[in-house]
Amino acid sequence: MNFPSRLIENAVNEFAKLPGVGRKTALRFVLHLLKQSDSEVAGFSETLRKLKQELKQCKNCHNISDHDTCDICSSHRRDHTLVCVVEDIRDVMAIENTQQFNGIYHILGGIISPMDGVGPNDLNIESLVEKVKREEIKEVIMALSTTMEGDTTNFYIYKKLSPYTVTISTIARGISIGDELEYADEVTLGRSIINRTLYEKNLKNDSQTR
Amino acid sequence: MNFPSRLIENAVNEFAKLPGVGRKTALRFVLHLLKQSDSEVAGFSETLRKLKQELKQCKNCHNISDHDTCDICSSHRRDHTLVCVVEDIRDVMAIENTQQFNGIYHILGGIISPMDGVGPNDLNIESLVEKVKREEIKEVIMALSTTMEGDTTNFYIYKKLSPYTVTISTIARGISIGDELEYADEVTLGRSIINRTLYEKNLKNDSQTR
Repeated sequence: MNFPSRLIENAVNEFAKLPGVGRKTALRFVLHLLKQSDSEVAGFSETLRKLKQELKQCKNCHNISDHDTCDICSSHRRDHTLVCVVEDIRDVMAIENTQQFNGIYHILGGIISPMDGVGPNDLNIESLVEKVKREEIKEVIMALSTTMEGDTTNFYIYKKLSPYTVTISTIARGISIGDELEYADEVTLGRSIINRTLYEKNLKNDSQTR
Repeated sequence: MNFPSRLIENAVNEFAKLPGVGRKTALRFVLHLLKQSDSEVAGFSETLRKLKQELKQCKNCHNISDHDTCDICSSHRRDHTLVCVVEDIRDVMAIENTQQFNGIYHILGGIISPMDGVGPNDLNIESLVEKVKREEIKEVIMALSTTMEGDTTNFYIYKKLSPYTVTISTIARGISIGDELEYADEVTLGRSIINRTLYEKNLKNDSQTR
């Protein structure tokens, strides 16, 4: 593409670096911004500048936060003996949206994946072990993706935490709500039979969730 | 969505204003930026700031430019008696990519569309008339979309320019190269028969374009 202006070319190049954005979409974004008022584009620019400069990481759970300790870790209404281990902040947001969890989180910042060159030392695993060692943690809930990498990470953390007196659990794997049995894969279906729950308990859960 | 940080929420809101970007995609963009280095995000922010502040409009053709007169208008190798009227800069880029046009452009900045509240006075039509009146323009080529709005704009400009001795032409409408006849709509097919070109001329054109 030949651009009539270097400024536009630069902006297109920046947008095209975003995941899933090609140069045509990037140009569409830039032309859209050109139609906006000066103050709006300046606001966008300023927001991006602040995003990286002012954002902090919670020193307790590694969550992204405006302060040194995030809202969840500094809340006295949360159960600080219950730690949910997740991959990144999107998972925190997803679990928070369910309103079913009242403990605190621990964000790994990724998942063990030798294919992508991510080893245990690249993740916030040591600080989790330290937390379990020092603080009074009753249960660690592993809430990672149900992939090979997720399972590997689960097992690694399980081994690391086994010397300490802490319950380690994983989130339930089973048939998604709304799914049809015949289309479920064998492993999921098999696990859902092994880990079956009492119907009475389900009824109680349903009335809480819906 | 509940965000762990106001900074992230602001950034997501800004990205979600872009065309075709929802809040989930916006969050994906923001999380991607968080993984980049400080200098890269600062560069993105700076590029956006400059984009609107430093960008100029060519005083001759209303194209976007880094200078007061765009590269095309200031080039002595272009035919300044041949003006191609287009809707916006994307069209200029598309026509420039064909390398088949050696004249200059005139960017309307839109198209007459009463449905969207765009009238002739919102477009750069008066400056086109002035240009034809003052300068020695031989031909004005209308290269607008082949829609109802495009046809309306064509006709409006045709009326405005009719007092002056200037040839007014439109780009050819016909079957796209690679298209099958049976799937072409009737109007296009009809026009392509009325405006048929000599086979010899086609051969010559083909050898130039390919």
